[in-house]
Amino acid sequence: MSKEYQYMQRAFELAKKGIGRVNPNPLVGAVIVRDDKIIGEGYHEFFGGPHAEVNAFRSSTESVEGATMYVTLEPCSHYGKTPPCAEAIVKNKIAKVVIGMLDPNTLVAGKGVKLLEENGIEVEYGFLCEELSHMNRVFLKFIQSKLPYVLMKTAMTLDGKIASKTGDSRWVSNEKSRAYVHQLRNELAGIMVGVDTVIADDPILTTRLENEEARNPVRIVVDSNARIPLESKILNTANQAKTIVAVTEKADSTKIAEIQELGNAVLIIKSRNGRVDLSDLMVKLGETGVDGILLEGGATLNFSALEAGIVDELMSFIAPKIIGGLTSKSPVGGEGIEFMKDAIELENMKIDQLGNDLMLTGKIKKKLVNS
Amino acid sequence: MSKEYQYMQRAFELAKKGIGRVNPNPLVGAVIVRDDKIIGEGYHEFFGGPHAEVNAFRSSTESVEGATMYVTLEPCSHYGKTPPCAEAIVKNKIAKVVIGMLDPNTLVAGKGVKLLEENGIEVEYGFLCEELSHMNRVFLKFIQSKLPYVLMKTAMTLDGKIASKTGDSRWVSNEKSRAYVHQLRNELAGIMVGVDTVIADDPILTTRLENEEARNPVRIVVDSNARIPLESKILNTANQAKTIVAVTEKADSTKIAEIQELGNAVLIIKSRNGRVDLSDLMVKLGETGVDGILLEGGATLNFSALEAGIVDELMSFIAPKIIGGLTSKSPVGGEGIEFMKDAIELENMKIDQLGNDLMLTGKIKKKLVNS
Repeated sequence: MSKEYQYMQRAFELAKKGIGRVNPNPLVGAVIVRDDKIIGEGYHEFFGGPHAEVNAFRSSTESVEGATMYVTLEPCSHYGKTPPCAEAIVKNKIAKVVIGMLDPNTLVAGKGVKLLEENGIEVEYGFLCEELSHMNRVFLKFIQSKLPYVLMKTAMTLDGKIASKTGDSRWVSNEKSRAYVHQLRNELAGIMVGVDTVIADDPILTTRLENEEARNPVRIVVDSNARIPLESKILNTANQAKTIVAVTEKADSTKIAEIQELGNAVLIIKSRNGRVDLSDLMVKLGETGVDGILLEGGATLNFSALEAGIVDELMSFIAPKIIGGLTSKSPVGGEGIEFMKDAIELENMKIDQLGNDLMLTGKIKKKLVNS
Repeated sequence: MSKEYQYMQRAFELAKKGIGRVNPNPLVGAVIVRDDKIIGEGYHEFFGGPHAEVNAFRSSTESVEGATMYVTLEPCSHYGKTPPCAEAIVKNKIAKVVIGMLDPNTLVAGKGVKLLEENGIEVEYGFLCEELSHMNRVFLKFIQSKLPYVLMKTAMTLDGKIASKTGDSRWVSNEKSRAYVHQLRNELAGIMVGVDTVIADDPILTTRLENEEARNPVRIVVDSNARIPLESKILNTANQAKTIVAVTEKADSTKIAEIQELGNAVLIIKSRNGRVDLSDLMVKLGETGVDGILLEGGATLNFSALEAGIVDELMSFIAPKIIGGLTSKSPVGGEGIEFMKDAIELENMKIDQLGNDLMLTGKIKKKLVNS
């Protein structure tokens, strides 16, 4: 591995430390190197806090003049919550900047590089692009579309079942897989379920991590007719995490008021075939700053979400067991697609193993129509 | 890699050349080495033909006296269709024999080693055991139980469906996966389906290989009430492959006679809950010399087979697509198991990729009861 990749890898690792804390900002890490020695490093630690480059300067153990900076994302050149990093780099007399990926944000795109080059700084870019864009996939979608990135998570047996015929689903996946899902809850701004899941399981949907402080996602319940039980945990834990109930105009206004009185938010969304229009819901959630959603839906909501074209990625945990049963549910139900040739396709499939479980992830191939 | 493993690997590769041709014998390969140079090699090429050791001697380019033989399976010491190989090794004055795995066949077990050692030949064993026992898993089960090894093959979408709601299943898996299944048909002695598959798809179930001569498996149809259509392809291609229809006593004797008249065999099997008792069917098929079966069942037969405890291994092809549909079928149906904690478990899971498809294989963990 070349030195460029090695230092960029370190900056990448640093960037990941900000997971769950910086959104809707990107994760960024930076390393300052001179004479093949790291003399400073930093990352974007929390939303509104100093950028990675600034933290790297602050941590430097000696003068950075003439040193090389490795940074995962193109340094910003505009005034946001903090002064532009490109200017800080110039002021600190860095000789060379190696950039992982350019910033797709139109306020930055290419301008950071230009400002650096105009000030006589050598610039290289395009390292670990795939890893970096995957790490910042939520940021990248949100900055360009103002819509949340939706990660659909399912867990099934090797014969494609999410529960037995009696509805028993404890547990399909193993402890490691379930712990991983809590990491995702910590990472993504929101978590979304259908009201039937709330009625059946009464989940709390908060984040439980071992040996680590957890951030709870905003809990979003798709509930066209406001059927959610007022005594459900999710409506009575406003002190732990925010809950948004998405209803249509048909929902009873007294019920809506009762939900709100418990300290929860209600979003009234356009209806489509009598149900919450999920595309409209995504627009509204984007407007409130929810940049990423973990969709832990049941079979019906999952199909509606896929049909509406709001899903970006699938993460499927597969447990090495067989439960059988003609009526046992599988992860995606609803109307379904008529012909195999018209199936929704996935790409960039990746395989991991969590204990005996498999974890398959892939991006939903967007169709030209509908998306 | 040590020299032992290197030469055993070569013997292993040779052994595999006999796939589909030697059963119910084991696949065996042998290499003769002197002064770090291969001077002879061979494998068991077809049932009833010379054993691997003999073929290695025949191919040797110079005297084998004092040389080392690498052989994947313990040399036999009994008179079967051919004279015992252990004696041939002694006669040829081999100095040392390196054995992959010992023979579990009680006629051989340890006796080959003993005979060699008694004649002053140095013996080592226990190389590539996992790979070798996997390669000979059909032989190993059959020799010990007289029951066929059953490999259940399924193909599903990422949401666990084997067909769309309309029943469309062409195709779930990709061309590479389908070609691989034809390799399995070439490898295993039998292929088994339920009569509903014959009624729905009228398959021929022969082996189609590219650039290679194919061996057709015996076609076995589980058909409790002899409902199989007399015009189905499988009953009218006795010139290509043998077909066995497994029925219960309830089946109409005229229909049975008609099936037989077309050149097919009928096995009358004990009934269990009005259906063919699959355990009894396995005993009967074992008696006719069927040592391995590729189970390409529908959801109902698959569950019955798992419930009866006859399945040894699952091979699941997973295509990166989603079809949805509450009523779309998944690979294992039937009654199903009530609670997730009682699910049938798999072990030794392996993952391969065939183009964009995933191929997951695992052994069914046998329960103490029932198996």
